[in-house]
Amino acid sequence: MMNKQDAGAILSINVGAIVSNWKELSSYVPDGVDVSAVVKSNAYGLGAVKIAPSLQRAGCKTFFVAYLEEGIEIRRAVGAEPHIFVLHGPAKGTEGEFISYNLTPILNTFEQIDNWIAYSVSAEHKFPCGIHFDTGMSRLGIPTKEAEELFGTYSDKLKSLNISLVMSHLASPDDKESPQSAKQLFHFTKIKSALTDILDYSPLYSLSATAGIFLGKDYAFDIVRPGAGIYGIHDTDELKLKSVVALDAKILQIQSADVGQSVGYGATYTFKKDGKIATAGIGYGDGFSRQLSNKGFGYIGDFKVPIIGRVSMDLTTFDVSEVPEDVLANAQSIEIIGSHRTIFDIARETGSISYEILDSLKNRYYRQYVGEVLQMPLGAGSGEV
Amino acid sequence: MMNKQDAGAILSINVGAIVSNWKELSSYVPDGVDVSAVVKSNAYGLGAVKIAPSLQRAGCKTFFVAYLEEGIEIRRAVGAEPHIFVLHGPAKGTEGEFISYNLTPILNTFEQIDNWIAYSVSAEHKFPCGIHFDTGMSRLGIPTKEAEELFGTYSDKLKSLNISLVMSHLASPDDKESPQSAKQLFHFTKIKSALTDILDYSPLYSLSATAGIFLGKDYAFDIVRPGAGIYGIHDTDELKLKSVVALDAKILQIQSADVGQSVGYGATYTFKKDGKIATAGIGYGDGFSRQLSNKGFGYIGDFKVPIIGRVSMDLTTFDVSEVPEDVLANAQSIEIIGSHRTIFDIARETGSISYEILDSLKNRYYRQYVGEVLQMPLGAGSGEV
Repeated sequence: MMNKQDAGAILSINVGAIVSNWKELSSYVPDGVDVSAVVKSNAYGLGAVKIAPSLQRAGCKTFFVAYLEEGIEIRRAVGAEPHIFVLHGPAKGTEGEFISYNLTPILNTFEQIDNWIAYSVSAEHKFPCGIHFDTGMSRLGIPTKEAEELFGTYSDKLKSLNISLVMSHLASPDDKESPQSAKQLFHFTKIKSALTDILDYSPLYSLSATAGIFLGKDYAFDIVRPGAGIYGIHDTDELKLKSVVALDAKILQIQSADVGQSVGYGATYTFKKDGKIATAGIGYGDGFSRQLSNKGFGYIGDFKVPIIGRVSMDLTTFDVSEVPEDVLANAQSIEIIGSHRTIFDIARETGSISYEILDSLKNRYYRQYVGEVLQMPLGAGSGEV
Repeated sequence: MMNKQDAGAILSINVGAIVSNWKELSSYVPDGVDVSAVVKSNAYGLGAVKIAPSLQRAGCKTFFVAYLEEGIEIRRAVGAEPHIFVLHGPAKGTEGEFISYNLTPILNTFEQIDNWIAYSVSAEHKFPCGIHFDTGMSRLGIPTKEAEELFGTYSDKLKSLNISLVMSHLASPDDKESPQSAKQLFHFTKIKSALTDILDYSPLYSLSATAGIFLGKDYAFDIVRPGAGIYGIHDTDELKLKSVVALDAKILQIQSADVGQSVGYGATYTFKKDGKIATAGIGYGDGFSRQLSNKGFGYIGDFKVPIIGRVSMDLTTFDVSEVPEDVLANAQSIEIIGSHRTIFDIARETGSISYEILDSLKNRYYRQYVGEVLQMPLGAGSGEV
């Protein structure tokens, strides 16, 4: 990671806001429902090993990741206690590592089920696992229509497993008008009922990620799996979730521009009157989308400064002609994400979604984790953790 | 980094092809011109510490990076010998690190010049530096119109510097019809001439990156600074540059699809007849653009497989209905970039450029460096280096 002095831009990740969002979501789910945290893809790009322990201290007992190695990283960060589920399940040959790190694989296919049984038999121990049913995503998990086979010819195999979690994933929970969620709920409820007949114990059931939480308590089951909500990128009327990141790009140079002067690669912007250009240390090499060329903008104080010319790999140019002289003279950086600009704004301007914007923030930014100590006086700023 | 077994996708970086491209470019420039390598932004995302030493062994003596820390990384990788220039110059207070690692800063502003002089005076040594003139990018460097000031009131200061390199950067070298390159060449030549009058030694001069090399020998000066060309992402008729990356996403699951079945978030794709879905371990969390939802495609052998539904964070779904049963049964992965699909294709489909696609490849891919041993028999494959 860059050091602060050298870096072109500073990414502030508010761990306090993340914890607060998790608590806010927790307050919304029915009593007795476990609220886990999805920390896959390095906690949506924000730094899983920094964030998971803070959530743990706040009471989070269950984490979800996509890959084995993400699970190992989290296990090292949170210690032995929490449950860690690995959504993609075990690639053949990696079973031993799941056991070593006490990671529970989610089995998505008949093949993964067979391999896990074979491994358990050879180790003479029924290691816990989860099973993922695909009730409508058509992506990963035992498809609903194949569930019959699982409950029929495969039921002896099912009985030989130690199933701690049964899950599915909603495809359209953001769209409350879509009938798809109710359909998936119907299928998942049928699966639960079939398993209840087959198994002589009760696994935990989980259907909802963040958006599913707002579909009502029928969707809550035993565990909910919020990701987006925790990171403040779920757009909802029900709860006020906090923004968790701020991004400020350092001003490296300010130069005057004459009428007719062009800017950047391909000279795609030309000044229509004399003005001023600020060049900031951020570019698509940092994950700052080139789609924002001549389109996005930032802020210096309360002054909006449009991006002019093409975003390049390491640098972006802003029109700062309208910023008063004294403000500009003292300005050190340009707000890219902060009090005036949200991740949602950038997602809209790039034809993307908040998730992707968050996950594209790169390590070339200097990263500071702020706000973890929640009892710190407001505005006391940025103690690194 | 992921291990190979666990990773959802394998990124193969052909160091041999990178070296070959550098040599190809070298063969094109006039004799006596130094061909450097731009390895900023982690060598355009491909791994600077792996690539720089290979280029060095091939004869590359000069490297360019954007940031001090990138320079330190390269210095550790290539040893004491090569020249390393840091394009953004020194942030105030970092001068000592430049000296410790023998990195030559490019000074872009009067402020950086003043700070460098002050540092040199206090250390009683004229440390080498470069100066960047902005002849048309309107981005970084002393603007042409301020060069007069530099040569006038600042000329004593200039004389107190130890200038090893004078550079500028072309804005529109890809467009051979644009008059901008000739204008920049004119300004740069004037700057050279003014400096020749002021200085009692001759610094090296550099104007061109990859595209500038193909504008003719007038643009070559003493050093050219290719980046894109080395990484095979410069589209040119003049030379045949090699592709340097291949990306293969593992097939995690294949499921049948019924007519009417929808796929992925928001159910944006619906099967019009019965078919088959392959789910692969790649998503926007890996830097695989969500813009490719329902638009991009991959290959299984010679069979084109369209992306269906939305690209999600960790997974992408492909329609594999047209792939013959026996081919599909043996398929382990889907070609995302390779012999059928180039970075240029993906750039076009996402409204981006090859540079950004290359630079967005993330570390969640398992990375293997292949082809470094150039005398290895063709097809002998992937010895990791």
